[in-house]
Amino acid sequence: MYDRVDRVLIEDESLRDGLQIERRLFSLDEKLRFIDGMVACGVRRIQVGSFVHPKKVPQMADTDALFARLKPVDGVTYSALVLNDRGLDRALAAGVGHLSLSLSASETHSRKNTGMTLDQAKAQVMPMIARALEAGIAVRAGIQSALGCGYGGDVPLARVCAIAAAYADLGVKEINIADTAGLGHPRSVHETVTAVQTAVGPGVALSLHLHDTRGLGLANMVAGLQAGVATFDAALAGLGGCPFVPNAAGNIATEDAAHALEAMGVDTGIDWRGLAALSLEMERILDRRLPSRMAQVVKAAA
Amino acid sequence: MYDRVDRVLIEDESLRDGLQIERRLFSLDEKLRFIDGMVACGVRRIQVGSFVHPKKVPQMADTDALFARLKPVDGVTYSALVLNDRGLDRALAAGVGHLSLSLSASETHSRKNTGMTLDQAKAQVMPMIARALEAGIAVRAGIQSALGCGYGGDVPLARVCAIAAAYADLGVKEINIADTAGLGHPRSVHETVTAVQTAVGPGVALSLHLHDTRGLGLANMVAGLQAGVATFDAALAGLGGCPFVPNAAGNIATEDAAHALEAMGVDTGIDWRGLAALSLEMERILDRRLPSRMAQVVKAAA
Repeated sequence: MYDRVDRVLIEDESLRDGLQIERRLFSLDEKLRFIDGMVACGVRRIQVGSFVHPKKVPQMADTDALFARLKPVDGVTYSALVLNDRGLDRALAAGVGHLSLSLSASETHSRKNTGMTLDQAKAQVMPMIARALEAGIAVRAGIQSALGCGYGGDVPLARVCAIAAAYADLGVKEINIADTAGLGHPRSVHETVTAVQTAVGPGVALSLHLHDTRGLGLANMVAGLQAGVATFDAALAGLGGCPFVPNAAGNIATEDAAHALEAMGVDTGIDWRGLAALSLEMERILDRRLPSRMAQVVKAAA
Repeated sequence: MYDRVDRVLIEDESLRDGLQIERRLFSLDEKLRFIDGMVACGVRRIQVGSFVHPKKVPQMADTDALFARLKPVDGVTYSALVLNDRGLDRALAAGVGHLSLSLSASETHSRKNTGMTLDQAKAQVMPMIARALEAGIAVRAGIQSALGCGYGGDVPLARVCAIAAAYADLGVKEINIADTAGLGHPRSVHETVTAVQTAVGPGVALSLHLHDTRGLGLANMVAGLQAGVATFDAALAGLGGCPFVPNAAGNIATEDAAHALEAMGVDTGIDWRGLAALSLEMERILDRRLPSRMAQVVKAAA
């Protein structure tokens, strides 16, 4: 029932998917402190920022400078998100070794989010992926709204599979299935993962990006695990949000995911107690209660 | 994977497990308003209170009066909790048709919570169950701390199974496995349910009482579903708490559980949107944000 995966990689996205929607701007030193703290707790992949227009997302304006100050650590990957060629140029110049690029599986979401139809977005993103791969960069190609569209757009599973197959044809080795609006549930996660696995074959690993909007984040992680997924996105303290549900919870919390996996006998290499302490530090900085559950458990035990 | 159960009964415990820890005392009229509201939304079993010492739990002091004012509704069961013979006398006098009684599977928890060893508690509770069954009352016999002890006490699965088997020998037809401290995870839920099913045989139904302390409430519900459980406790708005983790989330929220089950194609007969509105009314009365996720989703969509 739970024996398909015994080791999981968690990619922490708090500094990108979390901080990009916070009003408070974090300094480079603060970002580095959280990165170092997470690495010390055993987090092995961190999406530290995005190469996007600094006027559109000022929280991410220092991503180039951040990469210049990151210390390489054995076994740790620092990743970033790029949306367009200009961003890819900057990422290449910054020497980023692992990049996330993505398309939406919803025509409506693609238009609203990028101003492009799905075909236009494909025509832009696929050559970027090819260029990154040619430059020797590991690419994680994502499929947004893969489990439902927050704008109500149609998301046929066949389209999700077709995008995944096109990624695989380009030589992508990791495909991220993103529940952008937090609409997935265990049954749909299991069905989608299984269908995509069939579409891309065994040489491509799948990862899941899960939002806890409807309280199903960890349930969906377990459904992914049961379907053989061994890489999950999460965010310290459960930072992040869902643009369609302003008051909603964000990403699954890294410490909650790591605790749940440890309890189930799955190795993540992560010290979730240490992360929970870091999560409480984030609470103090942002001066509000954050969604993490294990942070509260650790706080109560202190 | 998810096809063992197609119809689920949710027992709402907000008025008992929730309100018993609130400082604010709810009037009889307020309680009745929430009961009527939940029934109108399709909730078919409600644990409306407990027959305990009114000085120890003043929030539950009006349970006798509450039963006198409940209107019978076809297909709806009003239930209550009893802890001792005096409470059982009151429940019988009030004409309650469905009662919850329980034992802890943790020796430490039993001593701390009831002042009795497990053997002493058994010697008290088993004759009460026999008496209630003889009086023609449907009994739900619970096993507290079945998925771990909040005080760190030992909870061998064999002891959980032995208690369940003793209940079954008495003629109990529903056994409630309670994760009192919110320590369960999908693997342990699945293992425990499967072992208890084997111990009691097919004539006894299992139900699960789940707390979301560590964010795994709905994941554990899905694990129970996968193991064949078709009855789950929940509480409107996610009320309730865990005495071992003061800031923790409470029970799984009834509207979140009903939404998740509906999304997965499992029938509950519950209008979770209506319940979410009722949950927001509870937020206004208690004047704080409550754990329910679907209440926030409904609020954002309004």
